[in-house]
Amino acid sequence: MSKARVVIENITPQVDCGKFPAKRVVGEAVIVEADVFTDGHDVVSCVLLYRAESATKWEQLPMSPLHNDRWIARFTPKAMGRYLYTVRAWVDHLATWKRDLAKKQAAGQDVTIDLLRGKQLEKEGLDEEIVVQHEPPLTIEVDRERARFSTWYELFPRSAGTTPGKHGTFKDVEARLPYIASMCFDVLYLPPIHPIGVTERKGLNNTPGAKKGDVGSPWAIGGEAGGHKGIHPELGTLEDFRHLVAAAQNHGMEIALDIAFQASPDHPYVKEHPEWFLKRPDGTIQYAENPPKKYQDIYPFHFESESWQPLWHELKSVFEFWIEQGVRIFRVDNPHTKPFGLWQWIITEVKREHPDVLFLSEAFTRPKVMYRLAKGGFTQSYTYFTWRNTKYEITQYFTELSKPPVSDFFRPNLWPNTPDILPEFLQFSGRAGFALRLVLAATLGASYGIYGPAYELQEHLPIKPGAEEYLDSEKYQLRSWNLDRPDTLRDLIARINRIRRENAPLQSNRGLKFHEIDNESLIAYSKTSEDGSDAVLVIVNLDPHHAHSGWLSLELADLGVGTEKPFQVHDLLSGARYLWQGARNYVSLDPAHSPAHIFRIRRRVRTERDFDYFL
Amino acid sequence: MSKARVVIENITPQVDCGKFPAKRVVGEAVIVEADVFTDGHDVVSCVLLYRAESATKWEQLPMSPLHNDRWIARFTPKAMGRYLYTVRAWVDHLATWKRDLAKKQAAGQDVTIDLLRGKQLEKEGLDEEIVVQHEPPLTIEVDRERARFSTWYELFPRSAGTTPGKHGTFKDVEARLPYIASMCFDVLYLPPIHPIGVTERKGLNNTPGAKKGDVGSPWAIGGEAGGHKGIHPELGTLEDFRHLVAAAQNHGMEIALDIAFQASPDHPYVKEHPEWFLKRPDGTIQYAENPPKKYQDIYPFHFESESWQPLWHELKSVFEFWIEQGVRIFRVDNPHTKPFGLWQWIITEVKREHPDVLFLSEAFTRPKVMYRLAKGGFTQSYTYFTWRNTKYEITQYFTELSKPPVSDFFRPNLWPNTPDILPEFLQFSGRAGFALRLVLAATLGASYGIYGPAYELQEHLPIKPGAEEYLDSEKYQLRSWNLDRPDTLRDLIARINRIRRENAPLQSNRGLKFHEIDNESLIAYSKTSEDGSDAVLVIVNLDPHHAHSGWLSLELADLGVGTEKPFQVHDLLSGARYLWQGARNYVSLDPAHSPAHIFRIRRRVRTERDFDYFL
Repeated sequence: MSKARVVIENITPQVDCGKFPAKRVVGEAVIVEADVFTDGHDVVSCVLLYRAESATKWEQLPMSPLHNDRWIARFTPKAMGRYLYTVRAWVDHLATWKRDLAKKQAAGQDVTIDLLRGKQLEKEGLDEEIVVQHEPPLTIEVDRERARFSTWYELFPRSAGTTPGKHGTFKDVEARLPYIASMCFDVLYLPPIHPIGVTERKGLNNTPGAKKGDVGSPWAIGGEAGGHKGIHPELGTLEDFRHLVAAAQNHGMEIALDIAFQASPDHPYVKEHPEWFLKRPDGTIQYAENPPKKYQDIYPFHFESESWQPLWHELKSVFEFWIEQGVRIFRVDNPHTKPFGLWQWIITEVKREHPDVLFLSEAFTRPKVMYRLAKGGFTQSYTYFTWRNTKYEITQYFTELSKPPVSDFFRPNLWPNTPDILPEFLQFSGRAGFALRLVLAATLGASYGIYGPAYELQEHLPIKPGAEEYLDSEKYQLRSWNLDRPDTLRDLIARINRIRRENAPLQSNRGLKFHEIDNESLIAYSKTSEDGSDAVLVIVNLDPHHAHSGWLSLELADLGVGTEKPFQVHDLLSGARYLWQGARNYVSLDPAHSPAHIFRIRRRVRTERDFDYFL
Repeated sequence: MSKARVVIENITPQVDCGKFPAKRVVGEAVIVEADVFTDGHDVVSCVLLYRAESATKWEQLPMSPLHNDRWIARFTPKAMGRYLYTVRAWVDHLATWKRDLAKKQAAGQDVTIDLLRGKQLEKEGLDEEIVVQHEPPLTIEVDRERARFSTWYELFPRSAGTTPGKHGTFKDVEARLPYIASMCFDVLYLPPIHPIGVTERKGLNNTPGAKKGDVGSPWAIGGEAGGHKGIHPELGTLEDFRHLVAAAQNHGMEIALDIAFQASPDHPYVKEHPEWFLKRPDGTIQYAENPPKKYQDIYPFHFESESWQPLWHELKSVFEFWIEQGVRIFRVDNPHTKPFGLWQWIITEVKREHPDVLFLSEAFTRPKVMYRLAKGGFTQSYTYFTWRNTKYEITQYFTELSKPPVSDFFRPNLWPNTPDILPEFLQFSGRAGFALRLVLAATLGASYGIYGPAYELQEHLPIKPGAEEYLDSEKYQLRSWNLDRPDTLRDLIARINRIRRENAPLQSNRGLKFHEIDNESLIAYSKTSEDGSDAVLVIVNLDPHHAHSGWLSLELADLGVGTEKPFQVHDLLSGARYLWQGARNYVSLDPAHSPAHIFRIRRRVRTERDFDYFL
């Protein structure tokens, strides 16, 4: 029983009934809405309360009514870290009295007694008994900008050398930095840099039994020279690594490390902590299996071990070690094969000390598992984009990703290729296919990445027909790349990444809208900036082999454009400008020339002198 | 930190994160689904736990996988009252081992060590540390069948007499029972039966200042003869009322009472408990207002009074008093002008003692307020059906009502008219309009009601043009009705209500599906029984003035019919039978003849002797 009459329902953002935080970045508005109402006709008032988790005092903002008993307010977090927010509401007797008094006065009624009642109400003030506050408060995780908007380049340091056959080093990677920075990437991600096991090492093209000189897979972590806190001696020293981190910073880039929690049979853990691995009845350690397949070069951790708690602490300390070395971004390998609770704990603990640390979840698995990892704290996540090629597939998937509840906790990072995946599409699409998948990744996702130089050089041969593994994969051998090949996509990549830097709508996953176009090979979508002031319209020819044309039907309201005046669409890829008017416009794209338009919408503005120019 | 690796998410049914119970009836399956998964590739097992709230031991049922990590189980409550349910899950090492063993054996691998591991696992048994159970459990309110399926008839007892101008009595209502029962109604609902105030009493047609002999509004409750536990002397005695309750039962009907928590200035509460009303600064009691309108004949309770707790207890005792007299169904007047907390508390308390009591919420107000009343415990609710006339409006509204989450807590009760509302449509639609609105109400809603005899006699004159109030409303005067008028809808009503009794799909709000028909004046929808064995297809001509025809495109799968064979549609209204095949079929409806088809789908079944007959 409670005297309070006001109801607060359905506060958004809210992830799984408030069990997990929603995600935003510093400077990005948190728009909070709630259903607030009471019985009868009384006026209600409500306020948004918010504070940094560490603060003791709530900030308070009035909420405004929308329609249908929905209220809204927004706050903009100024710092990283976790924030709390909730809604507080009450039946507002004074406001009710004012509203009713005005009606009575307008009807010419005697209001003598009403005026006395008003004085009474003013004297009484707000009765705390009738105030309701939603409990417990909801949470939001506020990251730095790069959590939302980032452009990734992955390379194998050992293939970064200039002498074919010679193992590359961190120094070689440093020499490669200007090349990567010229393409406007801001995250340089390295596969594991730790000592590689020799027992059961895999040979070229993943064959069992490495030959002498075979370099092994960087994901077979741990050897004589150390484990997850060690550096593979052929890459250099810890000092070299720190130098690379600093050099990358000077080029506007951050180094992201791959954290893969598994051990080669030679990992120091195996001897020092045999209790962290599952012992088979014959006393040997259980290697990785996916029956009937066996991966004898990899020992998974046994997370249901009696010693699971020391194991969790040790794994957390791996992140802490590399944070000490200046790393702030981690790409976590196969997080879906380790407990969800482990990640939630590690990420929460690490971010409490270092709120600027970002975690990318490399899980290509079932949808609910991928989403659960994101809810548990991963800043960004790999996606199914890699295999979404048709207009229908892309429209369905990105509509889901760009809307709440998913958009509140899951930040997609789109990869057209990875060292593990050469998608079938790229095997047969030619250069135009690489170009169009690049445009899609870079404009559908505020964060995307490529595995290079395989991508810009259009590496497209699979290990065998029907497989998605690269032939002569860098995972098992050194490669040497001719970065100066005339057909490289380097310039296109640079241009697209510059367009991303200069156009706010492409830096967020919100505001995505698909538009009708009467050709199944053409896809059209727009992105609008948070304040609606800026819009980018992308049209991509999904067919890498043939020219296509069609009639586009724009949702003009979504682009902030009216029907009464022409507007300019400026193709940021080609530089061409077109004057359009109304919703229906003709487009034509020949992949031999360009796979896409990336139009900036320039609205026509009338000046005082009636001189037209484009904003 | 927890060792348990399994995740349980998104259990359904679930109303507002489990804050409110979902609703079902005895014998109706509760289908529980949940997302259950773990990291990696291990097999998970999960069970549904459920019990009556009063029981101490959980019943347990295995859940089965659907697809995309969704699991399902169902239980069928055998008794009324509140039930609890939840999901329990774990990583199933033994099942994982069995699956992997089979794969290894199929590949001809040596499984010696695996067999030893199996023995180990069997010995270890299930480790409680790795079991997860969703907490707190979710709740479900289990009502009797009539909560879901009910057919209401409302009449004013004082107009039930046979001598024009003479005040009707409970005895007159008894005499009317065979007439009402012949139309197959099962709930007879009476407006308030309490003493009516004389101070500021309203005259005929709601005019201020009643003349001598004016009977006043039954909703101006309370006079010399008593208040909410009293009976208006002209209707009879408490003894007469109990006799009526019993007589109705003999006709297969229940009496539903109107509970309107407000007082006339003559209500005993006003003198005995002035603290339950708001005192104005001049010492008078605050009458009802909707500024600038004043309702001086009504005193609302002041629910923010210091004495709100005794007031709540007194109001609850009103229900308890009438329950004592044998009443089990209450129609609550304007619940949206009293605190939500009051209703939730009264309904919960009353149903704990009397789980067979049903509450109908008479709230015609904003959507979220109506839904909140239902969440708080109201068994059934009035709806916007009264004003939904076009195909678009009906399709949108009933699609929303028939799907979770709404269908889990909100049970619509459809009224084409009430004493307060003569919708504009019925003012101009003629007899055909009354017939078609009846078909819609009776087939779109498992529960519906009419205010009679105004409905069957097609009373259609408003108090003034543009108003929705009846002229010469029974709310303010006695009326005399000629029940034998040749144009009465009595026979049609009887037929439709019999069809409802004989066809399970019409007794539930689930399984509603709209079908395409290429004429905006024709609407088509089907309802399918829970087990899918039975389907009814309704087609209504929404235009009461003109014949319409069109091509219907059935979603055959929803009707359990294939394309390869013909099926019979049997019009339960006219008795006609048609043989149809495939999705597209022609229909034509002339309102002068019949406003609707109510087809039972009879599927063709092949017998051993290849002799076709219809199920």
